[in-house]
Amino acid sequence: MSLLDTVLVWIDKNRSRWLHDVKTFLSIPSISAQPEHAADVRAAAEWASDYMRTLGMNVETIQTAKHPCLLATTPDDMAPKDAPHILIYGHYDVQPPEPLELWTTPPFSPTVRNDQLFARGASDDKGQVHCHLAALMAWKEINSGFPCRISFLLEGEEEIGSPNLMTVVNAKRDFLKTAKVLLISDTNIFADGVPSITYGLRGLIGVEFALHGANTDLHSGMYGGTVANPAHALCEMIAKLHDANGRVTVPGFYDGVLPLTNDERDMWKKLPHDDAKFAADLGVNQLFGEAGFSTLERKWARPTLEVNGLTSGYQGPGGKTVLPNRASVKITCRLVPNQDAEKIGDALVAYLQSIVPAGVRFELIARSTGSPPAITPIDSPAMEAASDAVELAFGKRPIFQREGGSIPVVAWFKQSLGIDTILLGYGLPDDRIHAPNEKLDLKYYYGGIKANAAVYEYLAQKLK
Amino acid sequence: MSLLDTVLVWIDKNRSRWLHDVKTFLSIPSISAQPEHAADVRAAAEWASDYMRTLGMNVETIQTAKHPCLLATTPDDMAPKDAPHILIYGHYDVQPPEPLELWTTPPFSPTVRNDQLFARGASDDKGQVHCHLAALMAWKEINSGFPCRISFLLEGEEEIGSPNLMTVVNAKRDFLKTAKVLLISDTNIFADGVPSITYGLRGLIGVEFALHGANTDLHSGMYGGTVANPAHALCEMIAKLHDANGRVTVPGFYDGVLPLTNDERDMWKKLPHDDAKFAADLGVNQLFGEAGFSTLERKWARPTLEVNGLTSGYQGPGGKTVLPNRASVKITCRLVPNQDAEKIGDALVAYLQSIVPAGVRFELIARSTGSPPAITPIDSPAMEAASDAVELAFGKRPIFQREGGSIPVVAWFKQSLGIDTILLGYGLPDDRIHAPNEKLDLKYYYGGIKANAAVYEYLAQKLK
Repeated sequence: MSLLDTVLVWIDKNRSRWLHDVKTFLSIPSISAQPEHAADVRAAAEWASDYMRTLGMNVETIQTAKHPCLLATTPDDMAPKDAPHILIYGHYDVQPPEPLELWTTPPFSPTVRNDQLFARGASDDKGQVHCHLAALMAWKEINSGFPCRISFLLEGEEEIGSPNLMTVVNAKRDFLKTAKVLLISDTNIFADGVPSITYGLRGLIGVEFALHGANTDLHSGMYGGTVANPAHALCEMIAKLHDANGRVTVPGFYDGVLPLTNDERDMWKKLPHDDAKFAADLGVNQLFGEAGFSTLERKWARPTLEVNGLTSGYQGPGGKTVLPNRASVKITCRLVPNQDAEKIGDALVAYLQSIVPAGVRFELIARSTGSPPAITPIDSPAMEAASDAVELAFGKRPIFQREGGSIPVVAWFKQSLGIDTILLGYGLPDDRIHAPNEKLDLKYYYGGIKANAAVYEYLAQKLK
Repeated sequence: MSLLDTVLVWIDKNRSRWLHDVKTFLSIPSISAQPEHAADVRAAAEWASDYMRTLGMNVETIQTAKHPCLLATTPDDMAPKDAPHILIYGHYDVQPPEPLELWTTPPFSPTVRNDQLFARGASDDKGQVHCHLAALMAWKEINSGFPCRISFLLEGEEEIGSPNLMTVVNAKRDFLKTAKVLLISDTNIFADGVPSITYGLRGLIGVEFALHGANTDLHSGMYGGTVANPAHALCEMIAKLHDANGRVTVPGFYDGVLPLTNDERDMWKKLPHDDAKFAADLGVNQLFGEAGFSTLERKWARPTLEVNGLTSGYQGPGGKTVLPNRASVKITCRLVPNQDAEKIGDALVAYLQSIVPAGVRFELIARSTGSPPAITPIDSPAMEAASDAVELAFGKRPIFQREGGSIPVVAWFKQSLGIDTILLGYGLPDDRIHAPNEKLDLKYYYGGIKANAAVYEYLAQKLK
């Protein structure tokens, strides 16, 4: 029986302990967005620090402008001398639980029903963080040490946009960049029964602008037909942003898009995705998007431009015969590997300015480059190690998926430290993160602990 | 000296009395929209009843579901036996005065500054109503009677949409339809120094609709690119409602439009309108509208379609990466003589339904046929009488203008009673009706009394 096998058996034997521990962690209402919970956020940080100290790690609590960041490192005597350095990132803060009345059991009273652990943070991200903490605990207890030099960076501000994370990372850059790979367990698998590794994320840029007409709202009878209506002008502009095939018309919008390989297209075609079911679940009679790409391709590998909000004139009940003097829109674009967010943002703004209709004035209200896209090669030794670990834990080779959303830290870590991320997630698409009755399936919780225990060992072997 | 001359001299001699009377009328806060002013509305009705009884008229107070309507008629011994029957319409209710802090003097403390009478209702419409009451008083005092059989219909619900007026009119139809013409003094002249008669009004129809996408707002990362965005679909539809020349593209939208005659175009070209000044006053760098028509033509004689309000998705501060599941719009169209409001409304809704983009569902929220357009021939004997009266009072032949807005009662009276309206207005475009510091220029107030006194006499002569 190998050392890893012994660790895995130990993990199975101690299930009720892990469950007790993660429930304790989840019972602390570490809501980073709500100032009245600042002490709870600190309490969760302390709980995690204590846990990592029990693991034998050195834990530094780094105070920031708001909530502390924890950096736990492995003492020299707890890892083989030549073992690779592996960085794990996670967050111990959670989203607000409101509306409370929609929870079957209270959000901070973790409860198991039908092998599902219900609590705010169960899937995002305390439960998945604990998959690492428990895996490390098993290694510590069986072996008095880890197969790799593990560093664990745990922040308390992810749900408020990680405003201080990169200050911490940059301050520790010389140390952190010695890591060979970054592991993050904060994503979903494709579907129940389909263990998955996420290797690509879309990026995000945003723009908000207004069109201005007359110096005041006008009476539509006394002025209708004499001056431009900014609402019409705005609609004209928005209508020009896509062509009849659903393609974005902004010149240069597709610059840098990493084309899908045939392997990727083939791989995704085999996934258990059904357009008809997808449409039915959303309540639409047909799907819609850029011609020439499948639904998963459009969602994971094609940039998009979406209006997030439109506003102009009178919006209350009944009618008002007003010719509005202002119309505005919020737009965000999802970018894909390897697009340059700054460049695409410039192209978008330049195009918008070039299509402003006569008679209205363009005002750029805001522009944001929220998050760059990210991609990790799927044929690397680290990815192989991760695949082997998932297979060992779940009895199936994982599929490789991307995600349509954005996880800013992945690209930030790549930019700052030059290291790739493996998104080794154990959530399910229906975990209801950010919503009432968030949960984590215990099958994936325990499986995640085992997969993590295995990945440390396999990474040690492959990255030597 | 003719009888009319004597009446006019009497009007001039009694200026301070008229001013005192109108101030009394204006000091009653007859705000029809505000329930707490119901007693004030009644008080204004009583003041007007008393005034008309003093004129020797028979006054009937007709209770409605809300505010009373007054119908004053001329006893047989107060008009020549064969004198024509003339109907005057006006309203004694006013708009709310808020915001009060923007008034230089309180809205219900009528005050004269620089020969302008400031008060809520000074121009719209109590002041102009009193131009008739004073004219009739002068005739009564000089002649113990009027040149015509005058009926005065005075309502208290105009500012809330005249919900009960037509019930009253229809109940009195047999009597009212014996009137040869309807006089309304509730409009503006074209500009100071340009006495005017208004002979055409635009009509109004409205439609509000929504487009629906998925059954809930979606995460723009997880779903962007897979389903239709109702905000995009709405903009596409709105953008299709006008062509590049500013023409409305709805099939049949221009059906029934009474073409402008060369005389009308020539007449309007001579009016003191300056596009550059008009644009500068509105704060726009250029005017905009249907190609091939001047600004006044577009505003007075061309139908228009305007978005009054747009709404979709997130409109608060900052951004939200949402793919909204709903977008809606309020639209009103101004129609012109001789368009059929019902038919154009049908055409609009049918066209909208025909251009709904794929992937969204159309919902008609509301549809209204607010007001039909109206026009009165300018070469009639009644119009000649009105022109002569204005010329006598102001020393200048009036110009004939139309108005871009709508006065529903004009078309309603035409439909119900078959009589034409002469809009004999004494307001100025800058009277700030519905706004703080509403006023009436005393030059036009006193001139209006004289023009009215003269028009009764001239109508008696021309309509015999």
